[in-house]
Order: sequence, then C-alpha cells, then structure tokens
Amino acid sequence: MSTSRLLAELDDVGRDRRRGGYSRHVFDRGERELREWFTEQAGRRGLQVETDRNANLWAWWGEPGDDAVVTGSHLDSVPGGGAFDGPLGVVSALAAVESLRDSGFRPRRPLAVVAFAEEEGGRFGVPCLGSRLLSGGISRDAACALRDPDGTTFAEVMRAAGHDPERAGRDDAALRRIGRLVELHVEQGKGLIDLHRPVAVADSILAHGRWRFRFRGEGNHAGATPIGDRRDPMIPAARTVLAARREAAAREQARATVGRVEATPGGTNVIASAVDLWLDARAPLHPAARALVDEIARHAHEHAHDEGCTVEITEESYGDTVHFDPGLRDELRAQLDDAPVLPTGAGHDAGVLAAHAPTAMLFVRNPTGVSHAPEEHAEPDDCAAGTSALADVLRRWTA
Amino acid sequence: MSTSRLLAELDDVGRDRRRGGYSRHVFDRGERELREWFTEQAGRRGLQVETDRNANLWAWWGEPGDDAVVTGSHLDSVPGGGAFDGPLGVVSALAAVESLRDSGFRPRRPLAVVAFAEEEGGRFGVPCLGSRLLSGGISRDAACALRDPDGTTFAEVMRAAGHDPERAGRDDAALRRIGRLVELHVEQGKGLIDLHRPVAVADSILAHGRWRFRFRGEGNHAGATPIGDRRDPMIPAARTVLAARREAAAREQARATVGRVEATPGGTNVIASAVDLWLDARAPLHPAARALVDEIARHAHEHAHDEGCTVEITEESYGDTVHFDPGLRDELRAQLDDAPVLPTGAGHDAGVLAAHAPTAMLFVRNPTGVSHAPEEHAEPDDCAAGTSALADVLRRWTA
Repeated sequence: MSTSRLLAELDDVGRDRRRGGYSRHVFDRGERELREWFTEQAGRRGLQVETDRNANLWAWWGEPGDDAVVTGSHLDSVPGGGAFDGPLGVVSALAAVESLRDSGFRPRRPLAVVAFAEEEGGRFGVPCLGSRLLSGGISRDAACALRDPDGTTFAEVMRAAGHDPERAGRDDAALRRIGRLVELHVEQGKGLIDLHRPVAVADSILAHGRWRFRFRGEGNHAGATPIGDRRDPMIPAARTVLAARREAAAREQARATVGRVEATPGGTNVIASAVDLWLDARAPLHPAARALVDEIARHAHEHAHDEGCTVEITEESYGDTVHFDPGLRDELRAQLDDAPVLPTGAGHDAGVLAAHAPTAMLFVRNPTGVSHAPEEHAEPDDCAAGTSALADVLRRWTA
Repeated sequence: MSTSRLLAELDDVGRDRRRGGYSRHVFDRGERELREWFTEQAGRRGLQVETDRNANLWAWWGEPGDDAVVTGSHLDSVPGGGAFDGPLGVVSALAAVESLRDSGFRPRRPLAVVAFAEEEGGRFGVPCLGSRLLSGGISRDAACALRDPDGTTFAEVMRAAGHDPERAGRDDAALRRIGRLVELHVEQGKGLIDLHRPVAVADSILAHGRWRFRFRGEGNHAGATPIGDRRDPMIPAARTVLAARREAAAREQARATVGRVEATPGGTNVIASAVDLWLDARAPLHPAARALVDEIARHAHEHAHDEGCTVEITEESYGDTVHFDPGLRDELRAQLDDAPVLPTGAGHDAGVLAAHAPTAMLFVRNPTGVSHAPEEHAEPDDCAAGTSALADVLRRWTA
C-alpha cells in the first residue's frame, strides 16, 4: 500500500476538535490507538513487535539482534499538530519494508521499524522522552516524576498502560541493537519548496531546549487594587516574551518562542498570583544557545524585580548541536542524485541517538512550509519519493 | 450563631487544590452545595426559600411581596478566590435575621435574604449574571448562549440543574419586590485599615467591563521557523498587556488588568496560531472608561498589524458608573457614627440593581487589603460589627 494511503488510515485518530489538527500524546486514547494500529500493520507485514522498557515500539524483520539497521520516527503529535510530523516516518518505514518484501528481498542483517514514545513532549514536557530514556539522556527517576497538566506522573501513566516504570531508563541491550539509524520526516520549513526538490538529507540540528519561567506576584482584585499597589506577574511575563523575541532576532539563525502560558488563578477580574511561561530557544551552536537563554533569563529577573515579583527558571530539557554522520549523509546525498543537504531547527529522536550510532535523516517536501499545525502537508508523490529513497537505503544497508 | 462561626461551616466547600482558595461557580459541585446549605440555614431561621426564574435564591421572612427590604450578596467565587467575597454578605444577612428574630422583632414589611447567581462571572464570563438577567441587563438569549471553558452553555447548565432556561430573563414581578436593597461585602482594598474603622458605607462603583481580545497569526514550528517568517500572535498579545498597564497608569484612578490568557494550541515547541486575552478595565466615569479601552484597543490593532496578525475585540460586559442612593448612604453613615464613605473599584449585584431600586452597601474591614485571592480576610469582631449594623438597618426599614 502506498505511504499516503496507509497514512490516510490514521485520519480520524486523535483529532483535536477544540484546537484543530491532532493531539496525540503518550498513552492517551489516540496514541494508544496508533500503537495498536502500528502493531497490527507490522504484523501484516510479517514483522514481530515488541515494546522496550521505555515504551518505544519495535517491529523486527527477522530475528532481533545487535547492530541492526533501524528506521522509524514517532506517532505522537504536539497539541493541535499536523498529520505528518512523526507518523510519516513510521508509515514510510512500514511501506518501505513492504516494497522490499514484495520485491523478494530478504535482509541479511536485523532490520527494525521503531516508533519512539512522546517525541514531542506534548504531555510530559520533555521532548524525545522515549529515546532519551533509552539512551540515558534522562534518568528513570527524573522521567517517572514528570507530571502531565492534570498532575498525573509518567510513572502512573506507564503503570496504567501495563508497563513497569521501575524498568524504565537507560537500556544498553537496546542501544547495542542500533547499528545505524535513518529517520524520515516531513520537512518543517520551506527549504525544499525553494529548491524544487522532493527529498533532502539532514546535516545538523540546532542546539535547543525548553525552560519554564514561573513569575510570582500578589493575586488581588482587578478592580479594587490601584495600579501603584500591584505586583502583577503578568507584566514581567509579557516583557519577557518580548525580550525573547528581541534577543533571538539579534542572533544569526537563533529562535526563541513562547507558545504556552498559564496564569494562576486565571480569572478575568483577578490579578494573577503567578504566571508560568515556557521558552523554547534554539541556536546553531551550543554556546550561542546558552548565551541566548542566559540573556533572556537576565531580562526576566530584571523585569520581575521591577514589578516586585520573583521569577524561578527551570530547564526542562536541553540538547546540544547534533551533526549527523557525514559518511551516511554523503552516501544518501549521492544516492538521491545530489539531494539538498539541510540543517534543521527541529529536534528528533535521530538527533538524540546520533551520539550512540551513525545516524541520518531524510526530509520530505512540505508544500505549506508549516509544521506543528494542521496546515502541515506532504503530497503523495513526494511521500512516495521519500519511501522509495528509504527502501533503497534499507536494502543497501541490510543486503 | 455568630457570622464568623456560620461562615466557618463553609470552610471545606468548593476548595480549589490546584489554585489554592475556593473555586465556586454557578451550579458546579461546590456552588450547589452552598445552595443546599443556604436553603437549610434559611429554613432553620423560619425563612421560606424560593428560586427565581434566573437561578437566584430568595429566603423570605414572612409572605413574599412587593416593595420588600432585600439584603444578601452571592455565594460564588472567582477561580481560586477567598472565603469572604460573596458569602460574607449572605451569611451576615442570615445572622442579622436570626438576631432580630431572637430579640422578638417581627418585620411589618416583607424582608428577603438573597443569594445572586454567578456574580463573579467565573464560569460564563459575565459578572452579576443573575442580577443582570433579573433586571434585563442581559437578554435571555445572550445569557443562554454563553459557554463555560468546557463549551457547555448556560442554558444546558440551567437545565441540568432543574431550571427552565426558557423562563430566564427580565423578571418584572421579582424586580417589583425589591423595595430597597442593602448588600454587605468584605472590603476589597485598604481603606478601612488606614482609617482604623471596622465598617464603611459605599459611595460609588467605577465604570467597568470585560473585553476579550483574540489575536490570530500563523501556527508553526518553534524550531524550524526563522524569526523573520513568523506571524506569532503572542507578540501583539504581550505588547497589549503592557499597553493596558501603561494606559491605566496614566489615568487617575483607572485600572486595566489581564489576568487570563489562553494560547492555542498551547504547545511549548509550537508558535501559537491564536492567543486570547481578557481585559478587565475600569475608571471612575463612563467616558474615561470608554476612552481607556478605546486606546488599548487601538494599540492592540497596531501591535497585531506590526506582526502580520489580526485582532478581534469582543465586549463581554460593561457597567456604567454607579452612584448609590445618597439618602440611604447618609442614613447608614449617620447610624454608624459617621462611618467612612468609600468608592469601590469592584462590581456588585447592588450596583446592577441600583438602577431599579434605592440601594446601599456596607463594607467590612479586610486586614490584608487583598481580595479575589486566598489571603482575603475579615476578623470575627469586624464581621460582628457589620452584622450588627445590617440588623439595625433591616429593623429600621421593616419596622
């Protein structure tokens, strides 16, 4: 079945009627449905599915073993996200395996299709949670203590889904099985539109992370409290949003975004007692990313102080710059008729695992240039081109 | 029973574990419990309870009738509010009736204790919803179409609570019954602290209203979207928060507050596609309040335009300046040994009804000066002083 048709089977799973698009987060109803679908589809293609200690799904062609060729991506989405970010890489992998099998090919090396858990961090705040746990990038204790917006911990959610949170954490046996990894992904920008090409090869990932800023002031009555008597945390929060934009704009290729904000108690006629905002910040190199965040933090402290408020800043995740394996990159580029080589501002499981195995990524053109939103798209022909490129790589690596 | 002891019976009803304080909104679990409690307590004091067509509760001493003396307040709270704003006025009214009855007094004119519905607008956004409906300040259709944050309409909520939303709306029979009204309320500022007095009389209410600002831009990936390509509605939203503060600070006794903000979709690694913020704005006189909001709106449009975004502004409620009845005000002042006369920035049901009947308010000292927050307080002696003043008024007016 073509990649586009296979992907279309997921059209109705995990739709978000309020935000638009999809909200599929680890072990919520939609994501569990996607897991079942993946297991069934893998089975139909003769793959044997297992779940590792960190809730990542692995579908094996042939006996599981060390030094395997691994491909896949993730099934979860951001809140109100598009249909392609994540599932396209998983579905392309299943379709590539199908086309290889149909052609009579049999791999001489273990091959696995993987679906990593909670890549977007949409429920527990830490992106690439499944691959980070697997590779020891976050400890079991830290991950298990993470809470979703309802206050439920990751440990509780794992247990409810039939997994043992005690067994989560760095998994050396699973890591040894990853001989090399290729992840196919929808492009999250306009590079391929401008270059008129369907598929690109990834070069690097910006250093990036997430920080929670908690501003605290004094909750009070919005009508009865004179302006001069206020310690309103919304003021330094707003000033910090603008400082983040300003500091990012002043730096080459840097990005800083506040897309999530929560006021407590959140009443219209109430001066907030606290405002939480989440900063997503990225820059090409580690020192620049750190400098960007340090500067925004400095502004936040200053703005909080000016209003008689405080601010507490917590790093929720951080990933250094990733350079994908140059040998694999050049090999894919040559295979794809001198395909464009693009850096990306987005984080990926392949980026997390690049420290542990030679890793590469393929990007499929996105005609809207929009991602993490319902407008995200990839045309059937481009999906087919991506899947075909992926099948060629897998064939070569496992022959 | 003393007012403080009676109020303490409500200590555990409708607590908000997440925000702190209380969240009691019309027909939620806590508010329904307060209604039952009110009905039971009124019954114990020989009052006959009825619910009007707009879900307001009336407890009658003697036969219900036209031109009655009415006292009371509301039972609901803001999200994460204090224990006194609302319930103190209702409980003081019950305690005042009890003390009058115990003294052998019998009113010669109908007397009612009232608990108005959804005074804070904490669930459906429109403050004084019960008294506005009763007096025709909002139409039945407009009220019934209001939605709570879960998308449930006021009509659905009324129906589920056993009320007929078709019968809601202006109620001339109920209005005729209000001969005069006195509402006791915890003070929502520091006036009485500074004056070393337990009780004040209200003079006026600032003109005030609520406006919803919906900024729309383009949702996209927080990492992959260069700063120059963004249309991020969080930017004009933040600038509008600061413009509101600046414009209010520049005007005598004006207030402008953003205490509630919602980003859609609200993901950390997602540029928002929309940001909603609610503006609460107030000023002593109608033209000044309008000018303040117009100026903030002008800034909002300009800031939205600068970012390639749009903004849509909806007035959710507006109330003109209220001057309480000068005769009643002076009478209460004289009765209370030349009590301080204070204006207030807070809205009240008594303010809504001041256009329909002579109306007065008593304020009880709040030693923290904080309101709409868990720190709101009133000492037992001050509550007793307020209740005693209220009992004296009720006796005089119904003798």
